[in-house]
Amino acid sequence: MFRLYKRSEVKNIVLTIMSQLMPKEVQISRIEFEGPEIAIYIRNPKILAEHPEIARDIAKKLKKRIVIRTDPAIRKSKKETEEIIKQLVPPEAGIKEIKFDEVLGEVIVKAHKVGLVYGKGRSIYNKILAETGWRLNVVRVPPVDPRDLDTLNKIIDYMLSQSSYRLSFLRSSGERIHRGVIFENRYVRITGLGGFMEVGRSAILVETGESRVLLDVGINPGGDGFSLYPRLDIEQLKPEELDAVIVTHAHLDHMGLVPYLFKYGYRGPVYVTKPTRDLMVLLQLDLLDIMQRGNQKPPYTQLEVKKMILHTIPLEYGEVTDIAPDIKLTFYNAGHILGSAMAHLHIGEGLHNIVYTGDFKFGRTRLLDKANTVFPRVETLIMESTYGDRDQPRRDVAELELISTISRTISRKGKILIPVMAVGRAQEILLVLVDALNRKLLPQETKVYIDGSIREVTAIHLTYPELLSTQVRSRILRDENPFDHENVIRVEGRQMREDIAKSDEPAVILATAGMLNGGPSVEYLRMLASDQRNTLVFVSYQARGTLGRRILDGEREITMVGEDGRLEVVKINMEVKSIDGFSGHSDRRQLLAFLANIKPKPKNIILNHGEPQAIYSLAETIRKKSKYLGLPDVRMYTPSILDSVHVAGYA
Amino acid sequence: MFRLYKRSEVKNIVLTIMSQLMPKEVQISRIEFEGPEIAIYIRNPKILAEHPEIARDIAKKLKKRIVIRTDPAIRKSKKETEEIIKQLVPPEAGIKEIKFDEVLGEVIVKAHKVGLVYGKGRSIYNKILAETGWRLNVVRVPPVDPRDLDTLNKIIDYMLSQSSYRLSFLRSSGERIHRGVIFENRYVRITGLGGFMEVGRSAILVETGESRVLLDVGINPGGDGFSLYPRLDIEQLKPEELDAVIVTHAHLDHMGLVPYLFKYGYRGPVYVTKPTRDLMVLLQLDLLDIMQRGNQKPPYTQLEVKKMILHTIPLEYGEVTDIAPDIKLTFYNAGHILGSAMAHLHIGEGLHNIVYTGDFKFGRTRLLDKANTVFPRVETLIMESTYGDRDQPRRDVAELELISTISRTISRKGKILIPVMAVGRAQEILLVLVDALNRKLLPQETKVYIDGSIREVTAIHLTYPELLSTQVRSRILRDENPFDHENVIRVEGRQMREDIAKSDEPAVILATAGMLNGGPSVEYLRMLASDQRNTLVFVSYQARGTLGRRILDGEREITMVGEDGRLEVVKINMEVKSIDGFSGHSDRRQLLAFLANIKPKPKNIILNHGEPQAIYSLAETIRKKSKYLGLPDVRMYTPSILDSVHVAGYA
Repeated sequence: MFRLYKRSEVKNIVLTIMSQLMPKEVQISRIEFEGPEIAIYIRNPKILAEHPEIARDIAKKLKKRIVIRTDPAIRKSKKETEEIIKQLVPPEAGIKEIKFDEVLGEVIVKAHKVGLVYGKGRSIYNKILAETGWRLNVVRVPPVDPRDLDTLNKIIDYMLSQSSYRLSFLRSSGERIHRGVIFENRYVRITGLGGFMEVGRSAILVETGESRVLLDVGINPGGDGFSLYPRLDIEQLKPEELDAVIVTHAHLDHMGLVPYLFKYGYRGPVYVTKPTRDLMVLLQLDLLDIMQRGNQKPPYTQLEVKKMILHTIPLEYGEVTDIAPDIKLTFYNAGHILGSAMAHLHIGEGLHNIVYTGDFKFGRTRLLDKANTVFPRVETLIMESTYGDRDQPRRDVAELELISTISRTISRKGKILIPVMAVGRAQEILLVLVDALNRKLLPQETKVYIDGSIREVTAIHLTYPELLSTQVRSRILRDENPFDHENVIRVEGRQMREDIAKSDEPAVILATAGMLNGGPSVEYLRMLASDQRNTLVFVSYQARGTLGRRILDGEREITMVGEDGRLEVVKINMEVKSIDGFSGHSDRRQLLAFLANIKPKPKNIILNHGEPQAIYSLAETIRKKSKYLGLPDVRMYTPSILDSVHVAGYA
Repeated sequence: MFRLYKRSEVKNIVLTIMSQLMPKEVQISRIEFEGPEIAIYIRNPKILAEHPEIARDIAKKLKKRIVIRTDPAIRKSKKETEEIIKQLVPPEAGIKEIKFDEVLGEVIVKAHKVGLVYGKGRSIYNKILAETGWRLNVVRVPPVDPRDLDTLNKIIDYMLSQSSYRLSFLRSSGERIHRGVIFENRYVRITGLGGFMEVGRSAILVETGESRVLLDVGINPGGDGFSLYPRLDIEQLKPEELDAVIVTHAHLDHMGLVPYLFKYGYRGPVYVTKPTRDLMVLLQLDLLDIMQRGNQKPPYTQLEVKKMILHTIPLEYGEVTDIAPDIKLTFYNAGHILGSAMAHLHIGEGLHNIVYTGDFKFGRTRLLDKANTVFPRVETLIMESTYGDRDQPRRDVAELELISTISRTISRKGKILIPVMAVGRAQEILLVLVDALNRKLLPQETKVYIDGSIREVTAIHLTYPELLSTQVRSRILRDENPFDHENVIRVEGRQMREDIAKSDEPAVILATAGMLNGGPSVEYLRMLASDQRNTLVFVSYQARGTLGRRILDGEREITMVGEDGRLEVVKINMEVKSIDGFSGHSDRRQLLAFLANIKPKPKNIILNHGEPQAIYSLAETIRKKSKYLGLPDVRMYTPSILDSVHVAGYA
């Protein structure tokens, strides 16, 4: 009822830049808001190429993100530009392809060695900018089967083909982000829409007097009908009025319904890390595929996935970004999967700071560094609690158990089925298995079959080595593929699956989906379940309502729809084993260690993403240990879905 | 995103009535939805007059409220009708005035003795309907100075003059109420907008998947700027989309902002008891007057008060009323002030039941019976907690203390200033003082001056004797005025105030506002404060931020704006005394006794309308005594403003 906008602020920013901050010689031709960035179009890029600190200084002074673009008129022809690039970049960089985004003035170079293309201290980047007027954007091409890069390439090509749409989207969302605040923030409210007192369909609405932001919008792997979706049906959520959608990582229970928002009118930005964007698209398309094969009606189509792609705005860890007139977003490493992030929201010029952990691992894994704990400020912490009531075994113990389970099964001529989510657990287990094969801890003839989207997902990991653990990163940069081994074999087609199931050779099968909720893992289960020599190994959390959970909870007779459409009762005679300790989630000890280490200390802790006993147990533990954790006066909240908590603003 | 309506239900109801329930001879000409009622227009009222049970039976069968109207064509002329009324009604009834509402087909008769006009078992009502086609509506005219009935008469006249508008409003809101539900109720949420963890600006939003209802919408007596208002500025509250506003009683902190909603587009019904309607209008106009005199900008004008009047729908206690497709409202006596009600919401055909106590007194007073405790069902109780941490002295002890304080002050030639809210405390104290004068407990020459809107408010009490305690009611029906005495004098004009303040006669002054937040009580304070012989007596709750509270908390130098507009420092030398025990609120013991007696037992208790220490203390006490109270598994909620609690529906 009180809302008004102050348009003048937008103009002020522009005028300030024009008149004060830029040397005249750069010849500014235009200034635009493009998404969260201020784009300065210039006619003389040479000076900036020689003094790249100018742009950095402006960004610092304005506390805004700046991008320098060149006036199209001064850009050299594509042919000339390609020539210059080939002259400047050493052949060891391994350039595979050069493409042009004429709308944004970017030249996209796909190459094996990203660093060599940019040059030391971005020297080649600056030279190319000065000489051609094109901004360099280098994409890493990892040394893998080109088919594994298929989706990634399609994403890039699609964005290139829709460059004009993307520019107009960036401009309109930029105007909205920088519209200016006229009223102080009279409230900051957090409403759980999904993933509260449960695991699955994560979605959190953050409302201020000025704006509305959605943190994650996932699908429920164990849900059906309405419980598949978070509660997007409430009055205060209108997709067309949302300011931003933030996705913390690329698991379906956190991003599976982003395209659904576009179906219902959302046209704003989706903030993600780059790998989250790529993985998200891959897994959503995979989900549609699985649902269509299973004769389920998907909640959206490829059309909405495409719309979403054009609306993603990738951010780096630590990059402070305006996403609404009163909200700045910064991502921090969450250690859960590649590209996973904690979201830090700075609201209303110092009024309030929220950290939403998303799923996080406060512990080292083979693949990733552990989660960040230091933030500029934090008053309210929204923390996942999946393992809030349990500790997990140490990683080396878990690895030993996995290897010995595999050996034992092989020695009785059985096969090992490991259902894995394509992202995260798959790569982690692959690293363990490849390592075991290299160290000859498994029989030499042991084949490791990977099925589902694991290969493509692994290729995306190889595209972003800078986000992986030191050890894995350094091997990738040495042009090794730490996920590969001659015994690791990609499964193609249904016939091959049957052959593997029937063969006498020892085999470990990594297949999606990780909770046996569809996908090839279920097909393998059907073929392997009756033979008691085989073993089913769970290495990750099994959400309520999924087939994985039901088997884990003791069900041994499963009714499945057979290939011919008829119902079929499958008896689970195979050994069923759950190996804890591989989880990408923090266990109880790690959750508490995170709280002991987080700086500064939050005033409010809201627990989500856990079943009730995990949440209540963790809340109780935190209360008991509050002094030891340095949180003597913390307020604990354990809301249910559709509860709202008013964390800041006027009373 | 999922909403849809089922129009067919509306038609079904109408058809059912037409074809099955009515005898053909009544000659139905039309059926309309008019607000919560189904209006059946007939051409032959004789049969219904002879068999009034027909209408009752239909209401029961349909579980809908029914009103029978006559076809305008068959109504007798006004002159003839007046003649017939005068023939049928005995002269002792004391008819004062007869008016006609041609749109609704009602004849409004103002008379001294309501019962005599209606006749035994409504026999005269039925005869008039049969013979003239007009429905009788009798308004009581109490034996008071006609000036005291001014506002009341204006309300009635205004509604008469806008009868066509009112009919069209009733029809459009009727269509909306009976629009039918297509989806099950996927949620019931309660959001505190004001009066949570505080006293003042009460407002509660109840949302279901289908509808949105506001329980009270008060102004903060101790607030200024934004804190004057409840939080109507949130996204999920759009005045034009609200289904209903329910007002539990006529204190400004519960209804002071109802007209404000009309300023911002609300055009739906305001459900109240009849006395709440009358008192509400009186006090809102009084508030506008005081604010204008104090050079404050009122949040609305008389225009919006008028709009509100036309949109009120008065309900009786115990009358079950559809207010939305999925919500039925029933009012129950709250014992707080005349017309005060607890609101019972029955949601979604058995899904959930909410009882909101509003302000309530679970204890007898001179004026009113104690609050109701038996409800058809209740899962969630929203309970006021003003005195959640305190017991109050017994009423007789308080009365003795008041009389002795007055005597003591008179004996030292001082005057007694008692700031009172015009509604409730004023009448209660008047009853005490009149009784003391009658029983000669006070010097015979003691004058009781009443200033502000108290006289008019008292006249409204005399209009509704059936809602007062047995004792007071029976005296009124014997044509006595229990609030009157020859020493009780109405103050008129500023000069008279000054004369009273300067005079040497013993005087008790009852003046509004009750928390010294404006009005004549403040003028008296200015004139009486410096003389230490005088006494300031508080007899009611003083909300945070009011002048009353500040003085009670020890402030003895008050800066006031003088008549000439200049600032003036007033020293409080007079005695300041707070006499507890007159409160219209339940004290701690009474709150607990209410919980021990309520039937059935709620599953959730939400505490509101109390300062934090009162709320926390009460919550703790209830937890400790939960077994004794018969509430062993109750869930306690102590939300703050803008917190939401999800009480029913899917998870």
